[in-house]
Amino acid sequence: MWGIALDRKCEMTLARQIFSAFREQILTGKLIQGDALPSTRELSNDLGVSRNTVSEAYEMLWTEGFIVTQQGAPSRVADGLMITRKITETAQQSKAVKQVPIKWYFKTGQPDLSLFPKNQWRQMIREAVDEFSVQDLTYSDPKGYAPLCEAISKWLLRSRNMQVPVEDIFITAGATQAFFLLVEMLQQEGRAFALENPSHPAIRTAVSDFKSKIIWMTVTPNGIDTNALKDAPIAAVYTTPSHQFPLGGILQASTRTELIRLASERDFYIIEDDYDSEYRYRGAPISPIYAMDSSRVIYVGTFSKTLFPALRIGFAVIPKPLQTKWRHFKKYMDVQNPILEQIALSKFVSSRKIDKHIRNMRRIYADKRQILLNAITANFEDPVLPWGDASGLHLALQFPNHVFDKAFIESCRAQGLFVQSVQQYSTNDLQHQDKLLLGYGHLSATEIKEGIAVLKEIIQQMPS
Amino acid sequence: MWGIALDRKCEMTLARQIFSAFREQILTGKLIQGDALPSTRELSNDLGVSRNTVSEAYEMLWTEGFIVTQQGAPSRVADGLMITRKITETAQQSKAVKQVPIKWYFKTGQPDLSLFPKNQWRQMIREAVDEFSVQDLTYSDPKGYAPLCEAISKWLLRSRNMQVPVEDIFITAGATQAFFLLVEMLQQEGRAFALENPSHPAIRTAVSDFKSKIIWMTVTPNGIDTNALKDAPIAAVYTTPSHQFPLGGILQASTRTELIRLASERDFYIIEDDYDSEYRYRGAPISPIYAMDSSRVIYVGTFSKTLFPALRIGFAVIPKPLQTKWRHFKKYMDVQNPILEQIALSKFVSSRKIDKHIRNMRRIYADKRQILLNAITANFEDPVLPWGDASGLHLALQFPNHVFDKAFIESCRAQGLFVQSVQQYSTNDLQHQDKLLLGYGHLSATEIKEGIAVLKEIIQQMPS
Repeated sequence: MWGIALDRKCEMTLARQIFSAFREQILTGKLIQGDALPSTRELSNDLGVSRNTVSEAYEMLWTEGFIVTQQGAPSRVADGLMITRKITETAQQSKAVKQVPIKWYFKTGQPDLSLFPKNQWRQMIREAVDEFSVQDLTYSDPKGYAPLCEAISKWLLRSRNMQVPVEDIFITAGATQAFFLLVEMLQQEGRAFALENPSHPAIRTAVSDFKSKIIWMTVTPNGIDTNALKDAPIAAVYTTPSHQFPLGGILQASTRTELIRLASERDFYIIEDDYDSEYRYRGAPISPIYAMDSSRVIYVGTFSKTLFPALRIGFAVIPKPLQTKWRHFKKYMDVQNPILEQIALSKFVSSRKIDKHIRNMRRIYADKRQILLNAITANFEDPVLPWGDASGLHLALQFPNHVFDKAFIESCRAQGLFVQSVQQYSTNDLQHQDKLLLGYGHLSATEIKEGIAVLKEIIQQMPS
Repeated sequence: MWGIALDRKCEMTLARQIFSAFREQILTGKLIQGDALPSTRELSNDLGVSRNTVSEAYEMLWTEGFIVTQQGAPSRVADGLMITRKITETAQQSKAVKQVPIKWYFKTGQPDLSLFPKNQWRQMIREAVDEFSVQDLTYSDPKGYAPLCEAISKWLLRSRNMQVPVEDIFITAGATQAFFLLVEMLQQEGRAFALENPSHPAIRTAVSDFKSKIIWMTVTPNGIDTNALKDAPIAAVYTTPSHQFPLGGILQASTRTELIRLASERDFYIIEDDYDSEYRYRGAPISPIYAMDSSRVIYVGTFSKTLFPALRIGFAVIPKPLQTKWRHFKKYMDVQNPILEQIALSKFVSSRKIDKHIRNMRRIYADKRQILLNAITANFEDPVLPWGDASGLHLALQFPNHVFDKAFIESCRAQGLFVQSVQQYSTNDLQHQDKLLLGYGHLSATEIKEGIAVLKEIIQQMPS
């Protein structure tokens, strides 16, 4: 009836259904401009609904300008409403390739979440949600929740020897947002970002997306080669000095000093990514470049590895001359972090529960690292060389005279083994083809041992 | 002793304090390259600490490359470590101007948070935190928590007549992030973003920060003037069709159709910002442009006005051809939203608690709006014209023959009254100088009545 099929079980009201049916007819040209609609009495009889329902539908059509009405005359379709629809292009559906399930998942940067103190965290969340006030529900400072900044400042002092003024600490949605925001904020026409090679793709992608130039600094076993910085105009240098990602080295003091000198002379900032230095298994945590000279260093930390990734809280220590700009970009990027988890985290940090959790996990990760190294020794006769410092959640291993190319990685994957090569994080050269990257933080002893045995088999089958 | 003052009450370990003291001396040139450090025995005696403590400090200095050691010889300062520090420029401290406290805060876009069902929300959070699994703690899809996308899809159908496939719904950190991300994603060399004039500064700022061009579309009482779109290459059109911000009009169907036609012919997208259409006080909610043709429309919604701003959850409905790009940018912007509040919100929406809350608030906001209109009638003899549709949390009022300039706004502020003029949201012309913008959602009846009485006094004192 009038092309209208009512569905009385539908979540949509009957008036809305009538409205939608007419609208569709108008937009597709089945009803054209000037066409009269049935009277409300007529349509209500035909459809078996109340006249009020029809009036409501007509009111909706009128309000949005689909029909025009005149006292005593029928409602008519307004002018200029027909749309010729094109067939929508659809995104290519990624074909669901049937893959072997991953059994040994040596992915980097994965904390062992089965040991996260969930009950303590629940308690913090419950306290936070019980406490939070009407004031906490509204928009607040893009800088972040003040008690959380205070708790982080004290925690940095006791855990890393960093003296950071509370007013310099800015909360972010994880380190990822910090890098994104810093790239947007620091990019300058004609100046490049200098990144380590190899390095994590996050900041590289942000730099490329903003169409800024990249200068690569080659990573050596004990540092980075700063020669590439000598003549180029630089916007910022990005580095992972406490535990180079992915190779694991510690940036030596002479290079740190060199970077600070250059930053000052040539007017750029150093972005210091401290993604997992809590987990050092031999000796004290490495102190950051920030502690050497805070005026040119933007220190970025995260709780993704110490608590859990889906928390999405990190922080950046921003030098005072950049703070106004930072607030601007954070405000227009997402206004602020959600409040509830900031309150809970401030409790977790200020009550020092985080210290105890990190101490526990440090022992556990150290054991896992040793299990991995033992498994390597037990399985491989030829020497396999671990790179870098004994810290973090992953290990870079050099297998001299081997080449781990894409085919190798895929053949591991086909047997349920997920590994990555250092080469995958590198650019422009092939010097890291003989190194594999194994994340072990989240794996059980059995998974590590089995996985390395499988790795050995695959390597043995490699054509040499 | 050796320039080292130990503080045994400090949070920093003694070893760290020794390390820091030497490092500072090296960096500032008090100890220079080749200088010998005291032996561990010597220093431990002098400082009255254990020899292990000193060894630990030296180990830290060695690890980071500040000193070199040789069997049987004293530890010496490594080469090239001195930094000449410049005096750091500090951000200009904003002078704390002493301001009169605001008593009547007619800011736009503020929901009444005192009526937010906090206990229900607490319950949802408690359930979420009790339920969440190890899997929920790790990184997940940048698209957002799947049950939340499903809940939103059903809610859009029952509340707005929108049929949105679950796979097209993407969770954001509020509408702000959606706009930022869309601007980054849709910007194209040589193409402009078309925005309404007047409009909210959020998207305008994002467009300017990305250095894209802006084309202004003049807002008329019943729509927008699309003439400016005729010849210019367009990246996207941004519009608030259900309740123009700030003037309050409903975009008529003919203009909607025109926009859809142009978008298809000229290959651009329409960004539809539906920031508060839940709150319509007369008749059914306005249906979105998206419902007319979903292939060219990116619909953006938020829970900031219906739940609370510090939740930081919104969503965007993304056409399939753009979804890969969206995932990329969301991933490198902040990976994903935090998980806990997504779980809680999915419960709040799917249990339809949100429907009940919105129904309650709609009645309350309608009353407040009427109180505001009555107060205007009671206080002003000359006609004051309300603009736009009876909906939302704010009202644009035209006072013919008045000019509300910066001096007027400041003189209100000096008397504890916060109001804004429509002109503040406008650009390039002075046609909105006679209109004030009053947000009323969060105010009590008393605050509204008192505030309007104060407004009347200030207007009467204006030089005419």
